[in-house]
Order: sequence, then C-alpha cells, then structure tokens
Amino acid sequence: MDRNAIMERVRAQMPERRWAHTAGVMETAVRLAERYGADPAKAELAAILHDVAKYWKIEDQKRALIESGEAGDLLEYDPQLWHAHVGAHVARRDYGIEDPEVLDAIRWHTSGRVGMTLLDKVVCLADYMEPGRDFPGVDRIREEAGRSLDRALVLGFDSTISFLLANGRLIYPLTVMARNDLIRLLDKEADNG
Amino acid sequence: MDRNAIMERVRAQMPERRWAHTAGVMETAVRLAERYGADPAKAELAAILHDVAKYWKIEDQKRALIESGEAGDLLEYDPQLWHAHVGAHVARRDYGIEDPEVLDAIRWHTSGRVGMTLLDKVVCLADYMEPGRDFPGVDRIREEAGRSLDRALVLGFDSTISFLLANGRLIYPLTVMARNDLIRLLDKEADNG
Repeated sequence: MDRNAIMERVRAQMPERRWAHTAGVMETAVRLAERYGADPAKAELAAILHDVAKYWKIEDQKRALIESGEAGDLLEYDPQLWHAHVGAHVARRDYGIEDPEVLDAIRWHTSGRVGMTLLDKVVCLADYMEPGRDFPGVDRIREEAGRSLDRALVLGFDSTISFLLANGRLIYPLTVMARNDLIRLLDKEADNG
Repeated sequence: MDRNAIMERVRAQMPERRWAHTAGVMETAVRLAERYGADPAKAELAAILHDVAKYWKIEDQKRALIESGEAGDLLEYDPQLWHAHVGAHVARRDYGIEDPEVLDAIRWHTSGRVGMTLLDKVVCLADYMEPGRDFPGVDRIREEAGRSLDRALVLGFDSTISFLLANGRLIYPLTVMARNDLIRLLDKEADNG
C-alpha cells in the first residue's frame, strides 16, 4: 500500500475533525525528524498511523490488544492508553508495515518507554505539540522543542502526569519511568559537559 | 529497651530542631491510629524510629542499605529515599525491634508501597501532616485525614509527585504505584456503595 492509500484508509477510521490532528502530527514529526536527524519518511509513516485505532470502540480495541499478545499490564490501566499498542498491531496486520522502528514509534507514542529511540521521541513529541494542541504548558514544550528533544519530551510527560494528578486518575508507571530515563540521560550529558 | 530509652537514643541521632518533627509524627500517628483502628502503641513506636537514620551521612546510609540486603532499586534513586529502609534495618539491628508491622511501617513511610497496611498508612500520613509541616496543600491533607485515611494519603503522594515534577527531579515509580493502588481501593469502595 502506498503512502496516499494508507492515508485515505486511516482517515476513514476517525471523525473528520480528528484527521486534522493526524495531519498536524505528520507535519510536526517530519520537521522534528529533520531537526534531530531521524528519518523523515519513517516519522511521517508512524505519524499517519499513530491514531489509527483511537476511535475504535473500546471492546474492539480490547480484542485487538489481547490478540496482539502484547497487552502487558495495559488492561489494568486507562483504555485511553490502549490505542497506541492496538495501532502498532493494526499497522502490521492490516497495513503491511513491517519496519520495527515505525511500529515501535506507533506503539510507544502515548506512554513512552525506557530507552526510547530517536523515532519514538520524534513521534511522541509531535503528538504533544502539533499546531492544533492547546493545553497548559504546550507553548513551553514548543519552545523547548527547538533546543532539546529530550527536555521538550520531559515537559510533555510532565503535562500528562500533572493532568492525571489534578484529576485524581491513575498514572501509568511506564510514563514515569520514561520521564526518569530522559532526566538521567540529560543529567549524564550535563556531567559530560 | 523501653520506650523512653529508645526515644533518648533516637533523639541523639538527629539535630535537636528535627526531634520536634519526630515528636509531631508520634502525636499525629497515635491520633490517626485511634481514629482508624490501628494499634496506637505500634504507631508510636514506628513514629519514634521512622527518621532514626535520616541525619546519618549519606555514605553511612548507603553502607547500611547494602548491608540490609533490601536495597532493591533504591540506589538508583534520590538518597532522600534511603533513610526509611535504613531506619527499618537499624531498628531491628540496634534497637531490637522484631515486630514486622512496625518495621514495615518504618521501611515504607517515605515511598509507600503497593498493599500498604493500616499501620503503614497511619505512619506515612502522620509524616505528611504532623503539626510542624508547612507545604502547599498540607491543610487539605489534614482536613481529608478526618474523613478518609486513603484519600488523605493520595493527596500526600500527589504533593510529593507535584514537587518532583515542578523541580525536574526523578519520581520513584513505587510511589506512583502506591498512589494507583489507593485510588483503585477507593474506586472499588465507591462501586460497592
């Protein structure tokens, strides 16, 4: 399936107003990839597919998540986290995507993970800061994204964790570990001058 | 060693102005134990000893933590977390405390854990809200403590996590898991009416 065919098919999986978000993530992911030396074509492909399963019914997401054999502890957490893993599963199963870098960037775009690849970071950060996003702190994330991918992503995870705290909701531990991992990386860089 | 002998010996391990904090935790832990049906004598004993190692030199804390054989992943995190585990080790080794409930309440008073006992909760919450504490949100914790031990403790963990977020510091994943565990408990109670 070529790029345009994938785009058309993904677009049909979501409400029209949400396609604008995916288009924003595509544009932002390509720009970040160029800025930080990731592969722009892979970043764009992961961005196109990142929310492919987001507007599926929860039962359908759950079934696909279990089918993927990679649900891990996700079933114990907010269903809003599921679509990323389901997206990676569907990208392979229904769209023929085999590139593990692209599949990983889809899979970890919401939660993050320990040891995020450059492509994981680009897609995750693009999802936080695409032009249509509007939440407290998003402008600081956009500013920081011009200087440091890792620091901008820490601010992104900070905004997620703050939101969950303020709303008395569960916090997915992997997101905290992903943030810790980035802070350690930044501290190490600072130590090495 | 009787209660007064333990108190005198613990007092000698810390600056005089910090003994006032321990006295506040003792008084608050006894009150919370009476309110929520924990053993007040155990709560007081854990409170007396909870910060026994807090003012030790970091190298001495590290040595005791390794000696305890229960360092787990703590050595990878903020040394400010260490004194609780070291305190439990020292309470057994140097003060002859054998009661596992008291030792656990000392061990988990800073990080919390999944499956906190009633005594764990009482000592941890007393440490957050003793009369000498003054940080954003402490009055809300004190108010909530009159109604729900679990909800007050969630607010305590919220304040810790918010502080670490605001200061760009590592968040200990177990604290997030302890908070998740309490939220699930509260949700289950709400479901059961």
